[in-house]
Amino acid sequence: MGSYRIAVLPGDGIGKEVTRGAVEILKTIETRFGHQFEFEFGLIGGAAIDQKGTPLPDETLAICHESDAILLGAVGGPKWDRNPAHLRPEKGLLQIRKEMNLFANLRPVKFYDSLMDSSPLKKEVIQGVDLLIVRELTGGLYFGKPSGRMVENGEEKAVDTLLYKKEEIKRIVKAAFELARKRKKKVTSVDKANVLESSRMWREIAEEVAQEFPDVTLEHMLVDNAAMQLIRSPQQFDVIVTENMFGDILSDEASMLTGSLGMLPSASLSTSGPSLYEPIHGSAPDIAGQNKANPIATILSAAMMLRLSFGLSEEADAIEKAVQQVLAAGLRTADIAQKGQRVVSTDEMVNEIKATI
Amino acid sequence: MGSYRIAVLPGDGIGKEVTRGAVEILKTIETRFGHQFEFEFGLIGGAAIDQKGTPLPDETLAICHESDAILLGAVGGPKWDRNPAHLRPEKGLLQIRKEMNLFANLRPVKFYDSLMDSSPLKKEVIQGVDLLIVRELTGGLYFGKPSGRMVENGEEKAVDTLLYKKEEIKRIVKAAFELARKRKKKVTSVDKANVLESSRMWREIAEEVAQEFPDVTLEHMLVDNAAMQLIRSPQQFDVIVTENMFGDILSDEASMLTGSLGMLPSASLSTSGPSLYEPIHGSAPDIAGQNKANPIATILSAAMMLRLSFGLSEEADAIEKAVQQVLAAGLRTADIAQKGQRVVSTDEMVNEIKATI
Ligand SMILES: CC(C)[C@H](C(=O)O)[C@@H](O)C(=O)O
Ligand SMILES: CC(C)[C@H](C(=O)O)[C@@H](O)C(=O)O
Repeated sequence: MGSYRIAVLPGDGIGKEVTRGAVEILKTIETRFGHQFEFEFGLIGGAAIDQKGTPLPDETLAICHESDAILLGAVGGPKWDRNPAHLRPEKGLLQIRKEMNLFANLRPVKFYDSLMDSSPLKKEVIQGVDLLIVRELTGGLYFGKPSGRMVENGEEKAVDTLLYKKEEIKRIVKAAFELARKRKKKVTSVDKANVLESSRMWREIAEEVAQEFPDVTLEHMLVDNAAMQLIRSPQQFDVIVTENMFGDILSDEASMLTGSLGMLPSASLSTSGPSLYEPIHGSAPDIAGQNKANPIATILSAAMMLRLSFGLSEEADAIEKAVQQVLAAGLRTADIAQKGQRVVSTDEMVNEIKATI
Repeated sequence: MGSYRIAVLPGDGIGKEVTRGAVEILKTIETRFGHQFEFEFGLIGGAAIDQKGTPLPDETLAICHESDAILLGAVGGPKWDRNPAHLRPEKGLLQIRKEMNLFANLRPVKFYDSLMDSSPLKKEVIQGVDLLIVRELTGGLYFGKPSGRMVENGEEKAVDTLLYKKEEIKRIVKAAFELARKRKKKVTSVDKANVLESSRMWREIAEEVAQEFPDVTLEHMLVDNAAMQLIRSPQQFDVIVTENMFGDILSDEASMLTGSLGMLPSASLSTSGPSLYEPIHGSAPDIAGQNKANPIATILSAAMMLRLSFGLSEEADAIEKAVQQVLAAGLRTADIAQKGQRVVSTDEMVNEIKATI
């Protein structure tokens, strides 16, 4: 029995509905296992811009710093798309990553037998897929300076900078090896070492770190090849580690293996403070507020929180098992329903998972 | 009847065999249609490093400059993988792109009925796919300065630079619109405008260029979403235009739609001089010299050359039709063979296509 403070940042669009669902599930766990969860709510993204004039208000950061873990919904929407860079919802997300040192983004992609038909890929290709993308989250093109526009000799230019310090690479690669050690003991480090200097340094450091993990196999793969191999034979992968932008692209691609973006959770681990948990899907403004969104990705993110931040494996298992059971029983939100299947609402899905726990 | 000079750069690995095959096919066209093709051979990549000490010798560049079009095989191999950056086969490829101003890389991805079973994707997802990726090829992270390693305050760092001039973006987007005009009249411009300054400039310029093409629809898509959509519903795309690195990743991913990397040709158009044609596959050192490689991608690249550089559409059609016919007749090299199908060698495939023309 423990007591934990959870910062909840619903954000925009369906972020509100799916975090509400996940909080319900956490309350069920609280009761059933006799823990105490204290929820503190904060604004982020478009909602924060509207109410506080900034995508990441200080109050929100303060709540996060005082928490044991953070649960985030999603940010963004057409309303703010034409805003200047510093007043965009995404800026709130990038800032919280940087401010809270959320350097390691973990995105597990797992094959669900009951959802196989939703995948655009053939059964024999995706069967048994169980991979984990470990994406560097606080460096690279996302944060490197200079980043801006300029005019030189009458020519307009724009520049972004892909910068990595050795230590930044070392800690993310190390995290990947540690995770692989508890899995199938294979790390695929993805880079573009035939073109980029930063990738050549990445590769060297990966080799260095590998020395400390003689029980784990390291392989290197070029990012273009990785984009291909993820579709061609995803079963070959265990842990994939890569830099920020490559990770952004490859993890969204990999999410399609299961055919159900609405199913995929993620964890962003901090160097020291609380970690952040969020679904990998976006704010889906087109269906927001309609009680249609799939809450499972956020609920599974809450399960990751229990396991990784609080060490509550049994509780996490209980959630994950309940999700599998309701899926096996045929419950489907619209995004994962096949022709002829009955479609349930966000609330119905949440209630069913609660009842099953 | 015309007279054309073709620079042939076989490169490394299977590059040699597949260009030999394509030259055979071009000779067949020469005879059948009464043209005159003059072939000049040049070294590039590892072969050039071994014989001339540099991946792109001046002689090779001279041959290219004097040609009407360039046919390239592939470069690279484990033999040169540990070489310093300037002595790597890929450097020859990057240099020839830059030196010959090959700014627009065209990668068509087309569904072949007879090859459907080779794709990892379901039939209903890929049926009728016919898209064209237009990748910027001489800018961005591949060529921006600074690019290097340094130590600052005792910290080791590596940096690469994503730089674009306005004019570079304008000409590639324009090329994409011109190509779309002859197709399904839709351009999807792929960027990461929610994070990168260069992408925000890219998006603005795309909007500007679109004004000149009122008959063509422009849509913007974030690169992570594009990586997903390419698998989820590739039929939505006509022409995709994007910067160098995103194009590298997405086009390799898209190649998997057909399940047959060995089938895909490409053209790299120059601002003024001769254009370059090459298969998108690599040098496949593991099967080099074994008469096993699929020559079709290079043969189709030669067809693109006839059409785009020489305006010989009928001749290009003849090659493309012959390829379709031999495939429909069941001929397969190892890479595209399904269980139970007879596998033919590189030479057999070339001879059959020749006979069919
Ligand atoms: C919203 C955007 C800035 C973000 C990113 O690019 O990191 C998102 O795509 C993600 O993957 O979390
Ligand atoms: C070999 C390599 C430098 C090259 C690239 O990244 O452009 C290749 O992947 C390609 O796509 O032509």
